[in-house]
Amino acid sequence: MTQLPHFEGPLCPVPLRHDEKIVMGHGSGGRMTHDLIQNIFLPHLAGSNQPGGGNDYAGAGLPEPANLSGRLAVSTDSHIVKPLFFPGGDIGRLAVCGTVNDVSMSGAVPLYLTAGFILEEGLPIATLTQVLESMQRSAAEAGIQVIAGDTKVVEKGAADGLFINTAGIGWIPAGRAIGGELARPGDAVLVSGNLGDHGIAVLAARGELGFETAVLSDVAPLNGLIQAVLAAAPQVHVLRDPTRGGLATTLNEIALQSQVNITIEEKSIPVQPAVRAACEMLGFDPLYIANEGRLIVIVPSAAAGAALQAMRAHPYGRDAVQIGEVRAEPVRRVLLHTTIGGHRILDMLAGEMLPRIC
Amino acid sequence: MTQLPHFEGPLCPVPLRHDEKIVMGHGSGGRMTHDLIQNIFLPHLAGSNQPGGGNDYAGAGLPEPANLSGRLAVSTDSHIVKPLFFPGGDIGRLAVCGTVNDVSMSGAVPLYLTAGFILEEGLPIATLTQVLESMQRSAAEAGIQVIAGDTKVVEKGAADGLFINTAGIGWIPAGRAIGGELARPGDAVLVSGNLGDHGIAVLAARGELGFETAVLSDVAPLNGLIQAVLAAAPQVHVLRDPTRGGLATTLNEIALQSQVNITIEEKSIPVQPAVRAACEMLGFDPLYIANEGRLIVIVPSAAAGAALQAMRAHPYGRDAVQIGEVRAEPVRRVLLHTTIGGHRILDMLAGEMLPRIC
Repeated sequence: MTQLPHFEGPLCPVPLRHDEKIVMGHGSGGRMTHDLIQNIFLPHLAGSNQPGGGNDYAGAGLPEPANLSGRLAVSTDSHIVKPLFFPGGDIGRLAVCGTVNDVSMSGAVPLYLTAGFILEEGLPIATLTQVLESMQRSAAEAGIQVIAGDTKVVEKGAADGLFINTAGIGWIPAGRAIGGELARPGDAVLVSGNLGDHGIAVLAARGELGFETAVLSDVAPLNGLIQAVLAAAPQVHVLRDPTRGGLATTLNEIALQSQVNITIEEKSIPVQPAVRAACEMLGFDPLYIANEGRLIVIVPSAAAGAALQAMRAHPYGRDAVQIGEVRAEPVRRVLLHTTIGGHRILDMLAGEMLPRIC
Repeated sequence: MTQLPHFEGPLCPVPLRHDEKIVMGHGSGGRMTHDLIQNIFLPHLAGSNQPGGGNDYAGAGLPEPANLSGRLAVSTDSHIVKPLFFPGGDIGRLAVCGTVNDVSMSGAVPLYLTAGFILEEGLPIATLTQVLESMQRSAAEAGIQVIAGDTKVVEKGAADGLFINTAGIGWIPAGRAIGGELARPGDAVLVSGNLGDHGIAVLAARGELGFETAVLSDVAPLNGLIQAVLAAAPQVHVLRDPTRGGLATTLNEIALQSQVNITIEEKSIPVQPAVRAACEMLGFDPLYIANEGRLIVIVPSAAAGAALQAMRAHPYGRDAVQIGEVRAEPVRRVLLHTTIGGHRILDMLAGEMLPRIC
């Protein structure tokens, strides 16, 4: 290592071929890392700035928020979904949408994304490229810039193919107050579409269903849908995406944060027949299955109609419905009013149901 | 899963014991995740805000940058160091310092950190707690708030114990211009202390040295040192920490970004005897070994004395020295003026040297 090869002329990285695989040297921080970043990462993720522009931070290209009025919203999410590709999406789209959505649930406009990659030695460059192309498309759709990145490589067997962490930064306009603690008795509870599609699509891709299904993941960036809802119904109290733990767990979190009761109507909850069938065969409850492109909106009932109309006019909210309402009692409880007229307490997901779902 | 246990009364998580281990359910997003966050993560990382405060984003507690003048600096880093604990540090301190330092290299004041954890099933809760305590201490030392977090769990064998991604957000005061592209002929090149300590400490912890050594990692948050330097020498052109790839690779990146030559004096480069001895036995060059708490400062030579004085007055810069200078030619090259009077071209690290070093 003391005798390093001499490169004549300007530094000219050797193009990486798509039939190559990731090796440990790609994580060294030296020339191979430099080449991987120049040839594979930047062409896909640098639609905006070059992440870092050669520095280990991004900054110069960012606008001065002093020109804006409001405050920052920040979120992070690691993505470990297995397999990397599934019907309707992949880990790249998930990594962009997951964080775009978390930031957006504050009512913020998501602006910037960072992406940290942990690559397993042996990962085909073609697979990485496919994931990056998907990230690029999703980021373009969401209108967000990837402004900083990082790549690490671990030995074969020390990680499962590819993990992606994203962190997102958004801007909450001044005066906007949206949060899980703001649900109030009398509010309507809306959901943007069918529940459980993402979880069942990933299970199917793993071959764990034991039968064929045509369910596609719902993974999608929800910031456009949210801006449409807020334009029509600025009184919105809570926005939340029912990801891990599903609708039931998410509503429990809100009931706990807001110190309210949430009662939902079983017959109103949209679940597509293929997902219902898969859940029945596997003994799952679709209310606990993860979604990656569904939105819960809790809004004063007077504005529920306007919110629903705006949701239905958006491609990601076409099947929006009201599924229930916020009540004062019994506090911190989520109740399901069943189709046969009874009530069931819906608790949080207790343990593990579907691992590696996002 | 359709019949969930009923919890009487208010939700009261059962305290996790430190002799327990991580299981897949801790990543479910349901009650076990909730309990892990409430019992283990929040007590350590919520010195400031509760990350997210129950929401999937942080926002409410952040000040309005509209009151500040300047722009954002953003960076991200994934940490995969092996082993998790090493002399002088651990993955938690590394995860905080690595991102604090990357953000600070823009001249920014680092403000907020996000932390994403990927846990391997079977990880002892006691190990996780120890890492979180270290993160807490390091964040307090750096004066940075952890404002958002995420936890995922993968099956035993699908990740190597614990990976941590951090993303950092800082604020660059108006008028500050510091970057790898700003080195100019005539500038002095300073370094804050001994090189190679971190890499050798991690190798020793792995038992890969084949002999005992007392070298401690230099891992440290450099934002305090940097603010001291900038107060004494606001003319600084470049700040950079020589992490993966070491001093040689970092100086090559700067020479390339700034289109300059950097010439350094071998006899001026500080390497402690134990690191030099370890490198000689292993055939490594300390100039390519990773550091995690060292700072390169490139500053007009007229201000070099003031910068050095400020560095030496700070605990993390006591051994600061000038190691070379920026020249016009030969452009994009780093030259080492050797102790015997010759010149050697120092190239970037070519491939892999020390994997999993950060």
